[in-house]
Amino acid sequence: MKKKKKVNAAILIIGNEILSGRTQDKNIAFLSNWLNLNCGIVVSEVRIIPDVENTIVKNVKSLSNKFNYVFTTGGIGPTHDDITAQSIAKAFKVKYGYHQEAFKILENYYGKNKFNDGRKKMAKMPMTSKLIYNPSSAAPGFITKNVLSLPGVPSILNSMIDNCKKYLIKGSKIHSHTVNLFTVESNISKQLDKIQRKYKKFVDIGSYPFFRLGKVGVSVVSRSTSKIKLKYVNNDLMKLINAKKIKILDI
Amino acid sequence: MKKKKKVNAAILIIGNEILSGRTQDKNIAFLSNWLNLNCGIVVSEVRIIPDVENTIVKNVKSLSNKFNYVFTTGGIGPTHDDITAQSIAKAFKVKYGYHQEAFKILENYYGKNKFNDGRKKMAKMPMTSKLIYNPSSAAPGFITKNVLSLPGVPSILNSMIDNCKKYLIKGSKIHSHTVNLFTVESNISKQLDKIQRKYKKFVDIGSYPFFRLGKVGVSVVSRSTSKIKLKYVNNDLMKLINAKKIKILDI
Repeated sequence: MKKKKKVNAAILIIGNEILSGRTQDKNIAFLSNWLNLNCGIVVSEVRIIPDVENTIVKNVKSLSNKFNYVFTTGGIGPTHDDITAQSIAKAFKVKYGYHQEAFKILENYYGKNKFNDGRKKMAKMPMTSKLIYNPSSAAPGFITKNVLSLPGVPSILNSMIDNCKKYLIKGSKIHSHTVNLFTVESNISKQLDKIQRKYKKFVDIGSYPFFRLGKVGVSVVSRSTSKIKLKYVNNDLMKLINAKKIKILDI
Repeated sequence: MKKKKKVNAAILIIGNEILSGRTQDKNIAFLSNWLNLNCGIVVSEVRIIPDVENTIVKNVKSLSNKFNYVFTTGGIGPTHDDITAQSIAKAFKVKYGYHQEAFKILENYYGKNKFNDGRKKMAKMPMTSKLIYNPSSAAPGFITKNVLSLPGVPSILNSMIDNCKKYLIKGSKIHSHTVNLFTVESNISKQLDKIQRKYKKFVDIGSYPFFRLGKVGVSVVSRSTSKIKLKYVNNDLMKLINAKKIKILDI
């Protein structure tokens, strides 16, 4: 079997409403989970930036160089603060203007009479981009080099995400395994460190305290592309749990 | 009256659990709102990065140069994946070791008998840092140059945030005003653009579509340090709303 390679991505959230705290972001967790589950792509960095052209251009350039894919969300609507498309054209020095196919899709959707300037703006993008179809509100996303641009509204983004698949090279899926323990981190930190060192090359172990129903606990999450290595880690974890007589929580 | 200056900050979320989508972030919106409301500090960039020393060092350096303050969250607990403190020491080339005051606080909190190695690790940090007290679980945060390091667990972070105040220079608060309209963006995009151009220097106008109870709407959010300029924008907005006979929604 050919060994799959690691494929990574960055998410670039464009929007003052997220930065200001007015709107709670929902796209990061959704995209990250979807990419791993469906494409074996690992999200390695997220940035949230304001609707400022220069800032968008700089971040698109630097993330596009650094990662296999960049997913931008937000800023592709009809209003003055939607400047993602023009900024991406600038970042890659490609022509910005009406995209013929996008224009037709939108004209068809709204009908010639209701296809006003605001709506026409949504057909303006890097002219050589390929489209990401939008089954819920027609206005398409687009892919420019390795940058996929999606809208910010979560329900619309979610409805479009499957149409990104054909543009993506798949990587190795990250499997994860979680044990929720009725203990505190400092009770297991030393032994956990040892297990992490032993499997350093293959498995990432994370430890996350939680508080639920008045109880303090620790979720130990192991992540790896290899299911077998995850099993080895779990065996070592069970030994530690038994030795320390720690209760496993069902939550 | 002395004119207040613009003070900005970046948030650096350190943690694989947020990047992987396992955990939904709650700290960004909280911090951003708190900073604006209490200190007049604007969050200008957010980054989410993995628990990798080199990555933390690079991001701390670059954000610390670029913004007045940097808030890091996550990675200051007792386990092997908590490497924020040592990474910040490395970024600023300061000594990493037991912080006397932090050591005393933790020893006091746990009692000498229960103050094990894992717990002692939480007293290790850049040795010259000042502490940010933690009323809920004792382990303090710390400020190193212009970087304030807080824990990732939202309830603990929230309980500590007021103790950051004394380290922060205040800026001008951003006021905001929202009108929720029963219309679509493309119906007002042209006129909104005109209003934005008119008040370009003083007010940021954002337009955000929403869907609620089967209705499509647009929230128009104006943000400014000047309440008077916000009023001017609102007057122009009301003229547009009246001219187009748009209904204002109470939501």
